[in-house]
Amino acid sequence: MNIIELQDYKILLGEDIWTELAYLLEQRQYSRVLLLVDENTGRDCLPLFRANINLTAHVIEIPAGEQHKNIKTCQGIWQAMMDYETDRRSLLINLGGGVVGDMGGFCAATFKRGIDFIQFPTTLLAQVDASIGGKLGIDFNGIKNSVGLFSNPEAVFIYPPFLDTLPYRELRSGFAEIIKHALILDEKYWQTIQKADRLSPHGLTHLIQSSLHIKQHVVEEDPFEKNLRKVLNFGHTIGHAVESYALQTDTPLLHGEAIAVGMICEAWLSHKTFVLKQSELKAITDFILKIYGKPQLNPKSFEQLIALMRQDKKNEDAKINFTLLKSIGNAIVNQTCGADSILDSLAYYQGLEG
Amino acid sequence: MNIIELQDYKILLGEDIWTELAYLLEQRQYSRVLLLVDENTGRDCLPLFRANINLTAHVIEIPAGEQHKNIKTCQGIWQAMMDYETDRRSLLINLGGGVVGDMGGFCAATFKRGIDFIQFPTTLLAQVDASIGGKLGIDFNGIKNSVGLFSNPEAVFIYPPFLDTLPYRELRSGFAEIIKHALILDEKYWQTIQKADRLSPHGLTHLIQSSLHIKQHVVEEDPFEKNLRKVLNFGHTIGHAVESYALQTDTPLLHGEAIAVGMICEAWLSHKTFVLKQSELKAITDFILKIYGKPQLNPKSFEQLIALMRQDKKNEDAKINFTLLKSIGNAIVNQTCGADSILDSLAYYQGLEG
Repeated sequence: MNIIELQDYKILLGEDIWTELAYLLEQRQYSRVLLLVDENTGRDCLPLFRANINLTAHVIEIPAGEQHKNIKTCQGIWQAMMDYETDRRSLLINLGGGVVGDMGGFCAATFKRGIDFIQFPTTLLAQVDASIGGKLGIDFNGIKNSVGLFSNPEAVFIYPPFLDTLPYRELRSGFAEIIKHALILDEKYWQTIQKADRLSPHGLTHLIQSSLHIKQHVVEEDPFEKNLRKVLNFGHTIGHAVESYALQTDTPLLHGEAIAVGMICEAWLSHKTFVLKQSELKAITDFILKIYGKPQLNPKSFEQLIALMRQDKKNEDAKINFTLLKSIGNAIVNQTCGADSILDSLAYYQGLEG
Repeated sequence: MNIIELQDYKILLGEDIWTELAYLLEQRQYSRVLLLVDENTGRDCLPLFRANINLTAHVIEIPAGEQHKNIKTCQGIWQAMMDYETDRRSLLINLGGGVVGDMGGFCAATFKRGIDFIQFPTTLLAQVDASIGGKLGIDFNGIKNSVGLFSNPEAVFIYPPFLDTLPYRELRSGFAEIIKHALILDEKYWQTIQKADRLSPHGLTHLIQSSLHIKQHVVEEDPFEKNLRKVLNFGHTIGHAVESYALQTDTPLLHGEAIAVGMICEAWLSHKTFVLKQSELKAITDFILKIYGKPQLNPKSFEQLIALMRQDKKNEDAKINFTLLKSIGNAIVNQTCGADSILDSLAYYQGLEG
């Protein structure tokens, strides 16, 4: 088992995490334990969870998917917590992907002004990204994560065999954050992931650990995203807009798929409006297209994408804020770009051969 | 002007607070300022506010009353914040009573994971109680403050002339928290408030200051209500239930009116199940009845009141938790009482001559 110690909590990673979980529960003597799952993790992960630990817990199940990461679902979770007479000495375990973790954490942190919660991420995306750093929240009015707060879990448990329950597309979605970690901070890591064979749960365990160390470094330096932490937003200004837009269509994209598009566009911005070399832009574009193919964007949507970007949390003074790349492994925060450049970057993506 | 310095922020009290507010705004250079009011403070306090400071601000108005302190109103506030392109460098000023402060603070603390807010309490209740201590939140499913969090404002500004805009009943409601502060922590203060003439805004300024000092002491010792802060819950276990119940009837009670009932009942519990002297029970009962009269409770509601108390945030292990009095000026936390004793305390109240 690998243990990453953060200032306020630990991340435990491995197949042998269960005795640690049992020990934590024994120590804390919670008055009751609630388990939040979605319909997928209720079916695929909960039996694995139950097979590994003997625990009396009330299960709350929510529908799966980003489109349910909203205040209505929160109301259902708070209601269930109330129905189970949840008190301040209760624990909520979030067993699921980013939606379950972000929304369950938000509901726990705001129920009776805050009860303990544990993150038990079951997707690659949540394991390398969402479960660490204390960002919690929901989408509001079509804008991703626009309502939420920072609050840390009691612990994060990462059990790699959960990845076996994922469709390949989900696994690939999570891999986008691994690519991002390499691009923004670690050129050697970029070389390592280039060599990654076809993504497989088994081969990913050491990458999860490397990515967690990168993310740990960033969030501990800057927990409330005043500065350094903004490097993690690379690919996310355009990516979030693409994701929000696609969510309202018949062909929604997974988070990482949208971020993959965002990383290509923002690498283009890094080259055209900044100093990223042409050769590095090409390497990034080729690698991402090789893994993700090329989801089509509708050119008619571009103006709407810009409007969505204007709503981004990261903006100040109504300018659109980006994290760009100086080179691979080297990011710079607080760059603003005008709508014209952004439209050009979307056109660049559009013109690629997928 | 009186300044109370807390660890993270200041409370400024007096008629000459406006230069301090102007200075703070000048210093912080917020990208935009939003002002939250309800229909009462929009009509009665906003003109006074505007007459004292020249400020460009977007006004968000919500309906007045505890019955609107819910997630639906929050959605309206978040939506308005979005419409005004509120970013993370924006400020929300909450100009109103406890509902505006608690709910506005909650919306600010969760919008884009938290923007700055200033509390500008306009009722006596909010000035002596709600505005200090960082408790934010809304009612959910009929249970008071069951969704919320702890977060501190940038500053609290208390301008006593706002009290002139209040009906007497509102002023009296706020006075209940002043009575509570005396009963739980300061026997001398209890003697002082006994001598208070008919409540008047002018005569209250020095009481506001004394009460703020008591509350400051308590919340700084124990910001997250692990122990000492629970003394502030005296009168609130039964009082909150009475308030929640009354809210659903044609004769809702103001917060302080319900807490006044709660303090009588819990003083009775302090005497019957604990050590409070008969003479002190009588003094408390007489003083409260003199000021508040005796709102009628419906005996048919008693079982429902018990059910509401079971939902109280303060409970652990499904027992009903109280703060009781050992003597006037001397409280003890974490006392549990059974349903029978609680019913008897309600019967005691019922039997009083109003």
